[in-house]
Amino acid sequence: MSPKFNELLALLNTVHDLEAAAELLQWDQEVNMPDAATESRARQVATLSRAAHEQFTSEQVGDLLHCVEVPPNSWQADLIRVAREDHERARRIPAALVSRLAIASGRAKAAWRQARQDDDYARFAPHLETIIALCIEKAHAIGFKEHPYDALLDEYEPGMTTAQVRDLFGSLRNDLVPIVKAIAARPAVTDSFLRTTTDTTAQWDFGMGLLRRIGYDLSRGRQDTSAHPFSTSFSVHDVRITTRLHANNLCSGLFSTLHEAGHGMYEQGVDPKLEGTLLARGTSLGMHESQSRLWENQIGRSLPFWRGFYPDLQRAFPQALDQVPLNAFYQAINKVTASPIRVEADEVTYNLHIMLRFEIEQLLVEQKVGAAELPDLWRTKMREYLGININSDTDGVLQDIHWSLGAIGYYPTYALGNLMSAQIFACAKEAIPDFDDNIARGIFGPLGAWLTSNIHQWGRTRTASQIVQTVTGGAVSTRPWLAYIRQKYGGIYGGLP
Amino acid sequence: MSPKFNELLALLNTVHDLEAAAELLQWDQEVNMPDAATESRARQVATLSRAAHEQFTSEQVGDLLHCVEVPPNSWQADLIRVAREDHERARRIPAALVSRLAIASGRAKAAWRQARQDDDYARFAPHLETIIALCIEKAHAIGFKEHPYDALLDEYEPGMTTAQVRDLFGSLRNDLVPIVKAIAARPAVTDSFLRTTTDTTAQWDFGMGLLRRIGYDLSRGRQDTSAHPFSTSFSVHDVRITTRLHANNLCSGLFSTLHEAGHGMYEQGVDPKLEGTLLARGTSLGMHESQSRLWENQIGRSLPFWRGFYPDLQRAFPQALDQVPLNAFYQAINKVTASPIRVEADEVTYNLHIMLRFEIEQLLVEQKVGAAELPDLWRTKMREYLGININSDTDGVLQDIHWSLGAIGYYPTYALGNLMSAQIFACAKEAIPDFDDNIARGIFGPLGAWLTSNIHQWGRTRTASQIVQTVTGGAVSTRPWLAYIRQKYGGIYGGLP
Repeated sequence: MSPKFNELLALLNTVHDLEAAAELLQWDQEVNMPDAATESRARQVATLSRAAHEQFTSEQVGDLLHCVEVPPNSWQADLIRVAREDHERARRIPAALVSRLAIASGRAKAAWRQARQDDDYARFAPHLETIIALCIEKAHAIGFKEHPYDALLDEYEPGMTTAQVRDLFGSLRNDLVPIVKAIAARPAVTDSFLRTTTDTTAQWDFGMGLLRRIGYDLSRGRQDTSAHPFSTSFSVHDVRITTRLHANNLCSGLFSTLHEAGHGMYEQGVDPKLEGTLLARGTSLGMHESQSRLWENQIGRSLPFWRGFYPDLQRAFPQALDQVPLNAFYQAINKVTASPIRVEADEVTYNLHIMLRFEIEQLLVEQKVGAAELPDLWRTKMREYLGININSDTDGVLQDIHWSLGAIGYYPTYALGNLMSAQIFACAKEAIPDFDDNIARGIFGPLGAWLTSNIHQWGRTRTASQIVQTVTGGAVSTRPWLAYIRQKYGGIYGGLP
Repeated sequence: MSPKFNELLALLNTVHDLEAAAELLQWDQEVNMPDAATESRARQVATLSRAAHEQFTSEQVGDLLHCVEVPPNSWQADLIRVAREDHERARRIPAALVSRLAIASGRAKAAWRQARQDDDYARFAPHLETIIALCIEKAHAIGFKEHPYDALLDEYEPGMTTAQVRDLFGSLRNDLVPIVKAIAARPAVTDSFLRTTTDTTAQWDFGMGLLRRIGYDLSRGRQDTSAHPFSTSFSVHDVRITTRLHANNLCSGLFSTLHEAGHGMYEQGVDPKLEGTLLARGTSLGMHESQSRLWENQIGRSLPFWRGFYPDLQRAFPQALDQVPLNAFYQAINKVTASPIRVEADEVTYNLHIMLRFEIEQLLVEQKVGAAELPDLWRTKMREYLGININSDTDGVLQDIHWSLGAIGYYPTYALGNLMSAQIFACAKEAIPDFDDNIARGIFGPLGAWLTSNIHQWGRTRTASQIVQTVTGGAVSTRPWLAYIRQKYGGIYGGLP
């Protein structure tokens, strides 16, 4: 490579390292840090984010990006292309705004944690007001064609627009609402045994065992606990996940582990030659979520998976499961029920939680509602979509960390991920021989290799829509997901509309 | 304050935050990080160190340091004075050298860990050669009057020279060797019960209990385990320590905990108004070590301390201690014996371990010996000073992490710390009423407050020698330490020369 390319690469490595350090500061805040350090940690994260932003948006980087020459169809060419796009976008956001967002987010996170603990939304509301105002400022700085929300969404799902999401969600709603109604009319599934009190250490151990079996590489990662499970990556060689265990919920921690492991394996599967560059990341949050949901739901809530692991689970939790046959367990972990908590929601109703948030975020960004109105709005929409009453804000508007992180425009990627996961899973199942048998025998190597080869290895060298196009031969669609839901839940609840 | 001062302060905050992030990257490497990430972590630490160095040595900072006006006798005036000194020194070290040292150190640390595990010094030797060559380069870049070692020592013990250390160590040796010989001729103390196999979880719990009692603030810190215990600070509000537990050594982990807590309480005691600046640190490593040794030895190995805690310790480890009276325990934890391991050495012989390392470091810096010769040299000197044979390099030249960190010139501060700890302790004991009674009753508040008021709060606003002068009315001296040793060990072994 030319000296100019190497000069640029060194600068981009520096940006990457500053960002990785900022992410470690944040991982540490969730996992290890004493609360007393919240203010100084917020300042430290802000300092590093600002330094990364300043370095990346410098004229030196801009000049190099426009004069450097690289071989066509190489990863170096991909790097220049993606770096130019990121640079364009980042140049539009003033350094001072980046820093204010980081400081506001550090404080909002601490307030959110406290508010959640005390069920005291009023404590969080002013922080959310600040975050929203800063996000609107950011959207206008970036610029957009139709809707300020487009500018925010584009950060998480490059290329996707608010209008496209509205269309996909609209079409999904038309098919989904009758399905949810039909299921609600069928006899309820029993799942009380999942809420037997169980030892969280045994839950942890079982989760660690699953991680080892499905192919999450613990020599290049680790699992810890935190208030809200997440995954993060400091390099291809250090990808960490967290989980949350409940003594009165046997499976919530296990599925959270499988979910975050799906994210983690995506990052671990990126081609190591991209390490230290902005290409060494999942290509979009929707694609990321497709991987986590694939492992959590399509695999982790499937009959073949538990045909293999259920005897082990019974041995680990005999008091809870000894009298429960496999099929009853399978039905229980797939019980469809209107729950107030997004991360505990079943596959069928999950997307309704996302639609609610997507609608509220649009109203916030359009300044049609303020933070103070959210608890009521949340209650109203939860009654409307899921028919349930929210009794505490901790189980309502305060349940998720995202807004405190300044992540407005993030939620739609969860539902997009669900759609993509079904599309991708259908293709994997067709491509890999003896698919269900392998899963039942605890053999995950072929699936892991297929995902790495078709999706993970590319990092950001290919966009989500390019990957979906190559793998499935079409665009993001609601059909495979609806087909999967009808088949699986038809099997549990009887034929569905 | 003037706008120029605020501008300077913001720049110095940024330097501090970049350094704090680099320290978190390193803490994480020792405590949490998977080994596979060693290379990328080394690059990340190097990137942050370089960014901090570049920012601090920038012309912008230099110009502001020379034109900014602050009120005399204020902490702001202290900040400018100390920042100017640091700036002068840092300007002399090229950024590329800082970065090469950080990269070399990241690799050397990993090689050291592996070499130590496999007792394979040859694996570490080439890394040590690199570190020494870079340190010599650094010494010449910084400049020195008499000896290149002066330039390295000054980083850890500002103002102290190689010649001064040689004088203090020489005078100490004259008194110490006859004492060690006299003790060797007395009947040996029994301490086999300390090596009964005990539960490391119970050791951990007891150590956490001690931390709470002596005043280490767990709401502004935490303890973890690592291969080599250390303390680190990311802000006044987040000061962490680590320990190392051995199932076959009941007390090693406890004294390591008390030692690191001494360091930690120093950092926690710095005036919070200095937070985020280069003043919010212990003033020298010698002064730091005086605090750790005070808690580990003068308090933690004293009869009053165990008069209070020994019944609890017996209850926690009944199998090991039920039949052991307090006085036998006190003698055992103060047993004088030639040990190969510095961190396990008793108070009397400890300084001999330091003298050995100080002499070897001088030879390395003078290029009179190479890394390959160290195992033999180490064995020869250990026989000469302590009369013992070293059987494995893991218990010899590979035992300490310091050289892999590039910390040449660091060791003498341990012995200086021992001397200062005895000087300071004698003054504290005189100043605080009912001293021994309070310790025996588990009341550490008055001592903690005295140390904070006389030493901790000042951070780097006062030098070590200023503090020693103010507290003791004199310079660093060997006399109080020798008096302490003669009195305490005379009591255990009978009258000493």
